[in-house]
Amino acid sequence: MRIEVICTGDEVLTGKIVNTNFSYISQKLEDFGLSVRWETTVGDDRESLLLAFQLAGQRADAVVVNGGLGPTVDDLSQEVAARAAGVELALSDEWLSRMEEYFRRRSRVMPPNNRKQAMLPATAEVIDNPIGTACGFAVDIGKARFFFTPGVPRELRRMLEEQIIPRLLARSGMQTAIHLKRFHSYGIGESHADTLLSGVEDLVPDGSVKLGFRAHYPQLETKLTVRGKDMDDIRSKLAPVEQEVRRRLGNFILAEDDQTLERVVLAELARRQASLSLVETFTSGQIAARLAPLPGAETVIRRGIVALELAGVCDAVGLDSTSATGGITREAAEAVARAVRQQTGSTHALAVLIDLDEGPDRIDFGGTVCLAIATEHDVASRRSRIVGGREWLRLGAVEMGLDCLRRYLQGLPVRERIDFEKVEPPVEEAGAKR
Amino acid sequence: MRIEVICTGDEVLTGKIVNTNFSYISQKLEDFGLSVRWETTVGDDRESLLLAFQLAGQRADAVVVNGGLGPTVDDLSQEVAARAAGVELALSDEWLSRMEEYFRRRSRVMPPNNRKQAMLPATAEVIDNPIGTACGFAVDIGKARFFFTPGVPRELRRMLEEQIIPRLLARSGMQTAIHLKRFHSYGIGESHADTLLSGVEDLVPDGSVKLGFRAHYPQLETKLTVRGKDMDDIRSKLAPVEQEVRRRLGNFILAEDDQTLERVVLAELARRQASLSLVETFTSGQIAARLAPLPGAETVIRRGIVALELAGVCDAVGLDSTSATGGITREAAEAVARAVRQQTGSTHALAVLIDLDEGPDRIDFGGTVCLAIATEHDVASRRSRIVGGREWLRLGAVEMGLDCLRRYLQGLPVRERIDFEKVEPPVEEAGAKR
Repeated sequence: MRIEVICTGDEVLTGKIVNTNFSYISQKLEDFGLSVRWETTVGDDRESLLLAFQLAGQRADAVVVNGGLGPTVDDLSQEVAARAAGVELALSDEWLSRMEEYFRRRSRVMPPNNRKQAMLPATAEVIDNPIGTACGFAVDIGKARFFFTPGVPRELRRMLEEQIIPRLLARSGMQTAIHLKRFHSYGIGESHADTLLSGVEDLVPDGSVKLGFRAHYPQLETKLTVRGKDMDDIRSKLAPVEQEVRRRLGNFILAEDDQTLERVVLAELARRQASLSLVETFTSGQIAARLAPLPGAETVIRRGIVALELAGVCDAVGLDSTSATGGITREAAEAVARAVRQQTGSTHALAVLIDLDEGPDRIDFGGTVCLAIATEHDVASRRSRIVGGREWLRLGAVEMGLDCLRRYLQGLPVRERIDFEKVEPPVEEAGAKR
Repeated sequence: MRIEVICTGDEVLTGKIVNTNFSYISQKLEDFGLSVRWETTVGDDRESLLLAFQLAGQRADAVVVNGGLGPTVDDLSQEVAARAAGVELALSDEWLSRMEEYFRRRSRVMPPNNRKQAMLPATAEVIDNPIGTACGFAVDIGKARFFFTPGVPRELRRMLEEQIIPRLLARSGMQTAIHLKRFHSYGIGESHADTLLSGVEDLVPDGSVKLGFRAHYPQLETKLTVRGKDMDDIRSKLAPVEQEVRRRLGNFILAEDDQTLERVVLAELARRQASLSLVETFTSGQIAARLAPLPGAETVIRRGIVALELAGVCDAVGLDSTSATGGITREAAEAVARAVRQQTGSTHALAVLIDLDEGPDRIDFGGTVCLAIATEHDVASRRSRIVGGREWLRLGAVEMGLDCLRRYLQGLPVRERIDFEKVEPPVEEAGAKR
């Protein structure tokens, strides 16, 4: 089935807003085994819209149109859809009363111009929008079924997932259930993961499990798309494959599905009624900024400290300045983590210190990350060199800090070679580099 | 002149990467008075590329194509361009030696598959790429001039600005110089700014100055596009208008052109050899994360502290716990700012404390921001209520903290009503709300 997407609106066409709706639609359809073949963006302009609808109606079997369903004069999707479909606009009594009810529940009177949102092509099938006044609809133009969706992202998302994808799957003849299983990892590059997981799809010989990746440095998302008769069928197909993915990616899996690294770390701490203090240098508060905004962080995050120079770090955590004379080492990070834990009375402390290269930013700019995790009776640390420019280094160090804390809390090794670091000289573990 | 853009590549079409290249191209052209009328995205697929080129060649006068110039087999732009233009591919000796030189300077031998990047349509005009191996080129297809650009963003940007926009301006008959003047502000919404600046364009009666906006909460960018015979002409036209914009937006202008709020703040501090300590609560280190990564921050940023509860804040800065009993007020923020300044020995301190609403995140979730700036002999503070959900509040509070510090350092009032805050009850300034 050939699917096209048409995005409408002057704000998107002029680049005032980045078209994240399109990437969302396309990714979501991919997750369900559907592929977008062609995308068109046009402005709020009758002639362009009509031509875009006609051309897509000649080429495609299904078209998702986004935007242009609002109440203002520059929202033209219904009008042009009717013209392209060769039918009149007609008032949908069903949608008009839905809108009146929508405003009534908010103790407001519906403004007259919202009535326009209930004017649909006469042959249109209404597609529900439970959270807004823009009415979705489907209509045939040329040889394609067109699905019209609102530009507001949360309304689009809900309508696409609940209403349109099932209709697309039905039209494509894929009368099966589909499920997407996701694994998030840190430390393995996409091609390495592809090698590690080679053949896992074949554990289900009928081809109903498909492996895919989405790399967004520093994390990698590994996706399994599974088709089946129903969810029971899917679960039984998925079970051996997901088990094998967990076995092969092992300690690198930091979360699954909608979980995130920061939520996993916070939950592990909350579960043991622990509290955390953080010390950061070049990461500049970005580790704290991942954890502290989360609901429930108030009871866990005791303190975050940023200081850019080692002497300032020592000063902040009450270590005397002689502690700084050896420079940034694993031992220095351990001392800092121990000190901040004592100072704040938290159960856990994470210190991430970074020794930056000299000179301006460049592609081979790097830094040596020394991080330590301290508890009352224990300390763990690691040293790692990351190269790839200041921003690459910062992003990598934030993730490494959080992931080492996750590993520590889950009883996994804090030191395990990752793909994003320069190989350590073996002498390092003996401390000979200081 | 009708301009279209064609974006190519499976990664964009499947939504794996968000198409920021397109919004960049479109915005950049708008800045020069050129408008994109139609955008098409297709994958790495000969049939789709050919059809997209043919259709655009029938409709447009100029087409910018992005992507598909790389060395691998799925990079098809040159091949399909030649087919659409009805000419053969031919080796560009000029580009081949440029590439060989490129690799030589990096002490590498050119891999054989890079040779493909020098194969251009026989009639193509080479467009220089001074920072990569992908060769830009221009060729006629249908009635349009096509400009082919690399997918790597920095290569695209440089080629578009230096090579393609001048050619587009020449083709459009706008044989004039164009200049874009930008003002960045915080605290004024787009429609308010539009009202405040009404009529400024008319200060230059020949219509050669155009006013525009780009809102990206919490900041607003105000743009003046100016046309003239040459830069002298532009400067003389711009002078009265930019003066008037500065007068009307006044204290709200935080930076101009390529400057940023955080760089302005850091420069003001560095200029007086000052140092800064920061205390944050719900902003979670995001204020520190804006300042601390900047070059030169090491000598300015003394310490950043994050603590989520007021008691934890007091503890961190060495205030006794009775200081916390009054809750989050302007006076509490002042005490915290004074204390952290003393504790760290910095010349300046900024404390941003936030009293969050109860309950889950929602559109009317808000918080009361109490912030203070302390120096050795002075303290300034402000209190403001921001509503619009947790993330909206956090973004707004980060910006307000930085902007108040900018105002303080520039001798401007720290308290000035902004469009994003709920109006304060007048009693507040007398402290009666505690």
